[in-house]
Amino acid sequence: MSIHEEQASIEVGEARIAGTFLTPGTLLPGVLFIHGWGGSQQQYIERARAVAAMGCIGLTFDLRGHAQTKPLFETVTRDGNLADVVAAYDCLVQRQHVDGTAIAVVGSSYGGYLASILTTMRPVRWLALRAPALYRDEDWTLPKLQLSQNQDLASYRRTLVRAADNRALQACHHFDGDVLLVESELDTIVPASVLASYREATIRARSLTYRCLDGADHGLSQELDQRAYTDALVKWLGEMLADARRSRDRSAREHDVSVSESPLPRPVQVPDFTEP
Amino acid sequence: MSIHEEQASIEVGEARIAGTFLTPGTLLPGVLFIHGWGGSQQQYIERARAVAAMGCIGLTFDLRGHAQTKPLFETVTRDGNLADVVAAYDCLVQRQHVDGTAIAVVGSSYGGYLASILTTMRPVRWLALRAPALYRDEDWTLPKLQLSQNQDLASYRRTLVRAADNRALQACHHFDGDVLLVESELDTIVPASVLASYREATIRARSLTYRCLDGADHGLSQELDQRAYTDALVKWLGEMLADARRSRDRSAREHDVSVSESPLPRPVQVPDFTEP
Repeated sequence: MSIHEEQASIEVGEARIAGTFLTPGTLLPGVLFIHGWGGSQQQYIERARAVAAMGCIGLTFDLRGHAQTKPLFETVTRDGNLADVVAAYDCLVQRQHVDGTAIAVVGSSYGGYLASILTTMRPVRWLALRAPALYRDEDWTLPKLQLSQNQDLASYRRTLVRAADNRALQACHHFDGDVLLVESELDTIVPASVLASYREATIRARSLTYRCLDGADHGLSQELDQRAYTDALVKWLGEMLADARRSRDRSAREHDVSVSESPLPRPVQVPDFTEP
Repeated sequence: MSIHEEQASIEVGEARIAGTFLTPGTLLPGVLFIHGWGGSQQQYIERARAVAAMGCIGLTFDLRGHAQTKPLFETVTRDGNLADVVAAYDCLVQRQHVDGTAIAVVGSSYGGYLASILTTMRPVRWLALRAPALYRDEDWTLPKLQLSQNQDLASYRRTLVRAADNRALQACHHFDGDVLLVESELDTIVPASVLASYREATIRARSLTYRCLDGADHGLSQELDQRAYTDALVKWLGEMLADARRSRDRSAREHDVSVSESPLPRPVQVPDFTEP
């Protein structure tokens, strides 16, 4: 978050004193939340509130085939849902006050799979994947619901998949932003081997934070695990935002130019005068 | 910080999907910084930046007799400087986006003394005093510079002063918001007994956080101590803001009404559907 500084002249009776207003900059990081298959934006609304409280603009949305468009559940394809994700991303970036260079994308399961692919289509700085699912590249335009029958996913997900052989993993392979990977210890839908495939794929990431939620299942059916995931996500994002702020400040100082929203020179910290 | 929620309808080709934007509310906490005698607003500008990065609107300013109005150094009175503080407070509260019910006042030394008295004149929720100075109530309209000769301050500050006998302490005695008190261990100007007087006075405070900076002098002449003070201040304010957010959420839930900026009903956290 950038800081805006503005000189003020304060009236005191007939006199005037000098002041400086310091306000959060007008450009805020944006965070896109992508729910899992069979879910809805409700899964992420509490987390989006927590993230807004950190000074970000969040966007949750319902993938086609879910919530109000539930009738499309049996026919919607990965291609269609990826178009949803891109449309939601564009909607977020076009939103007033959103800093298009500071976008985080957060996805669970099928949403994590789509989030990974999005990074090849739009600029993403931070990528958070919880129990990201994996599908074979084939049948791209087949209804998503049929993949479980057609692709023998259970056995596919028990093997370590090479990045070159999978569109989502390849996206992760090329991604050079920061990554959070969250595993559920007792996940039988997206087992540890899938997380290992994602982890191995993200070799170019600027940073990797990998966490395993002990005792959690795929859907985080325990309230405790929901909270643990929220905590991990919020803490990680807080660290990323602080880091981004520091590096922007440092770069502004090194190049001896003020950051665009901070027109005043950066003064040194002066000790207090000794009060007599 | 309040959260604003807004339904969105996102176009995907010919179709539409439902989304929800979550943005930081438009009302932000305000923080007023009051420098010490002989200082200037430069003392607080870095801290004000840190506080703005937490989503607050900060205001630093130069007391009369300082910086641009230095010629008044020998004639300005406590009464005059208190008027400056009130004018700066009013300027902050009138600023667009500042939440007048969420104002913090931060003062060092003479600035802490003035901050305490301000709480009897304007609504203050959070009060942070670093090495707050103490003067006898008499000679209120005498130039501030003459008090050290007229009031035998050194011996006054070595005694424990009762709240009833001092205007600033009495203000603290009636203050029911949250208080941060920061002492410098090796302070010879405002010794430990003054801090004890302030601490004893704040018996009605909603919370009290008392910290002593080991090895620090009155003016925090070591860069290390400057940082330690900033850290203590930022950590305390972060806790206060998080606390305020929680209690607002709780109260909105208990009364079964949405908070003003959050028109959507608060959904329960739903577990993810199990991805097939």
